[in-house]
Amino acid sequence: MSCGVGVIGAGTVGGGVIETLLSHGNVLRDKSGVQVVLKHVAELRQELLKDYDLDGVRLSSDATALLADPEVDIVCELIGGLEPAKRFILQAMEAGKHVVTANKMLLANAGPELTEAAIRNNVELRYEAAVAGAIPIIKAIREGLIANRIRAAYGILNGTCNYILTRMTEEGSDFDVVLKRAQEKGFAETPPDLDILGHDTAHKCQIMASLCYCTQIPLGAIYVEGITKVTYLDVAYAKEMGYQIKLLAVVREHEGEIEARVHPTLVPNTHLLAAVRNEFNAIYVEGDQAGPTLYYGRGAGKFPTASAVVSDIIDIARRGDAPAPPPFRYTHNIAVRDIGLLEGRYYLRFTTEDHPGVLGGICTILGKHGVSIASCIQKEEDEDASAHVVLITHETVESSIMAALAEIDKLDFIIEPTHILRML
Amino acid sequence: MSCGVGVIGAGTVGGGVIETLLSHGNVLRDKSGVQVVLKHVAELRQELLKDYDLDGVRLSSDATALLADPEVDIVCELIGGLEPAKRFILQAMEAGKHVVTANKMLLANAGPELTEAAIRNNVELRYEAAVAGAIPIIKAIREGLIANRIRAAYGILNGTCNYILTRMTEEGSDFDVVLKRAQEKGFAETPPDLDILGHDTAHKCQIMASLCYCTQIPLGAIYVEGITKVTYLDVAYAKEMGYQIKLLAVVREHEGEIEARVHPTLVPNTHLLAAVRNEFNAIYVEGDQAGPTLYYGRGAGKFPTASAVVSDIIDIARRGDAPAPPPFRYTHNIAVRDIGLLEGRYYLRFTTEDHPGVLGGICTILGKHGVSIASCIQKEEDEDASAHVVLITHETVESSIMAALAEIDKLDFIIEPTHILRML
Repeated sequence: MSCGVGVIGAGTVGGGVIETLLSHGNVLRDKSGVQVVLKHVAELRQELLKDYDLDGVRLSSDATALLADPEVDIVCELIGGLEPAKRFILQAMEAGKHVVTANKMLLANAGPELTEAAIRNNVELRYEAAVAGAIPIIKAIREGLIANRIRAAYGILNGTCNYILTRMTEEGSDFDVVLKRAQEKGFAETPPDLDILGHDTAHKCQIMASLCYCTQIPLGAIYVEGITKVTYLDVAYAKEMGYQIKLLAVVREHEGEIEARVHPTLVPNTHLLAAVRNEFNAIYVEGDQAGPTLYYGRGAGKFPTASAVVSDIIDIARRGDAPAPPPFRYTHNIAVRDIGLLEGRYYLRFTTEDHPGVLGGICTILGKHGVSIASCIQKEEDEDASAHVVLITHETVESSIMAALAEIDKLDFIIEPTHILRML
Repeated sequence: MSCGVGVIGAGTVGGGVIETLLSHGNVLRDKSGVQVVLKHVAELRQELLKDYDLDGVRLSSDATALLADPEVDIVCELIGGLEPAKRFILQAMEAGKHVVTANKMLLANAGPELTEAAIRNNVELRYEAAVAGAIPIIKAIREGLIANRIRAAYGILNGTCNYILTRMTEEGSDFDVVLKRAQEKGFAETPPDLDILGHDTAHKCQIMASLCYCTQIPLGAIYVEGITKVTYLDVAYAKEMGYQIKLLAVVREHEGEIEARVHPTLVPNTHLLAAVRNEFNAIYVEGDQAGPTLYYGRGAGKFPTASAVVSDIIDIARRGDAPAPPPFRYTHNIAVRDIGLLEGRYYLRFTTEDHPGVLGGICTILGKHGVSIASCIQKEEDEDASAHVVLITHETVESSIMAALAEIDKLDFIIEPTHILRML
């Protein structure tokens, strides 16, 4: 059994896929029983191809010829971004070709349209590499845990953010310093906005929510907060209280609605997610049958991503000419719960003038809004005569916290807006 | 699309599968697009069935009728043990039925025969539940990581052993005390031998090695050492030096051979496997493309195991009447490397009389065999006038260590045989 593969885009991920298909042909054939053959590569920048041994592989400088190539059974879209990626995928499907992509931005924005096109054309659309790189998390949620109602999933899904937060925690450096170094080392893009503002994590959150709950939620319904406001002070106080700060994508079921949100989160040191360091990713999934499970690995990089893309290729190739199995459909229509209704615990850091009555003033207003305190740190004043009061609340409703903070931040002795972080 | 399921054995796992198929029919249909219907249950002890709503399900007190039932497309063998489980599985395959099993003992002993029978009869044999319960590790290794040469896999695969070792570490209790309590709580079987002597882990190690290296190694080729000789003292010294003791199944490639071994192992606290507590399982897999990945969850229990069994059922059902994909074959013939050739670091605990020259005497003999020391703890004498010397070696060959210990244990001042543990 043989299967022809076309790769559009030979950048980092595409290059990894090309190299893996060329170097691991025997491994793949031995393990899978099918022969996967790289037939066609489309790349505008032909100089990217000079290091590969592409004898017998057709090379094009645009995708048109590849999409019309009868020897290509599976098209790998690895150029990323919205257009022309979407157009290429739809054209491939209309030509009866299966599609493998790593394009989380496109899936998060146009998932339903692409899924419907795959069903209409009786082809498969696969995207294991779109969430958490090398970790086979999509396969785990969609197939391995299929017998479960998913209670919740918590993901560290952006290596750049986790690297920055880990370095801040372990070195005691501030955000800007670590970001600059990460950029120098190639661990962060320039500009870094897509990562550090949380949008990349939100794309993956959208895909994860869709998989867990057989639904397609609009990307705009996901609450997104990045890591740019996390200071070294917060990281240090969290550490002192037994927590690590992680940027989490959270999806959770909640009485006929789901939560879908992305924000920096205090994770207790005893939780496995707290042990996920540097650029690594991990997803903690709680099923009603399986109980808690966790998946860990590299979320990005040439070969880790290629590992996921090639696994999709093989899954499709192993089916041969048999009809596609019933597609995973997004049959449910579930609303995303408003973030104001969120119930949880909160970390609050107040920056105040150092005079009597500060703690009392803060606690009175919190109490009035029904917010009760679980623990507190108040330190002696800084050199600049400001003091910090750090509180961790008992479970409360987000809208109550926000109403209380609106009042507190108007108090005379509050020097800067209060820092607030959610807790796992 | 509809698919009939027969369940042989309604004990803990079988009961979990029956209950999941009955209670999660809608979830399964929505997610998978196929209708899986429980058609037949065979159980000698009919009283086990009284709590389930089995309207319309045929009930038999032995497997014969089920194996001949034309409405059963997939047979779940959930009675465990070698016979009659093997006979039932072979009969089912000869009748053209797919088989799902959780029977690691049978797979480890008769894997090649069962695999060949599946190929011959053009049916599928699946066993996600046989290794690490709810964790979709077989799917991850076989499908998710298919593009990888597996460098190594390290598994905590027996919940009973991990529970005992965790409690010893965290409570400072000795082995017998914790075992007794585990038995009272139902976390350990009576007799506990299959677990604590390492045989259950060896069964899973055999399956894992076969998956990772497309080979079938004889169960007898796996070096097996259980946890019965691990004392509280070892756990405490390991802790002091920054390690946790875990019973690991290790498979590793090694220049045309593979390592396959089961033994208590010192895992550094910085490694994720050290954070796997109590009855949980985890597998750390290193692929040449993916890099390190880790999978964590419940390795046993009614519903976690059912989650895995049902995922296999759905995978088969989703294919419908399409021909089975090319089977995963065990085409390679790789030898298991002799444990004496193992290269690694070792933990050694000597029990000695407390007099001058002890450390010198030990180190002289170790040095003569080419074993060098990385770190050392020597404490003041016990109440009984014996002293302990604990050494951690640099990388060395197992046969050198063993030769050195044979000499050392004959020394006058050595009171009891030296405790030796391998390190990750």
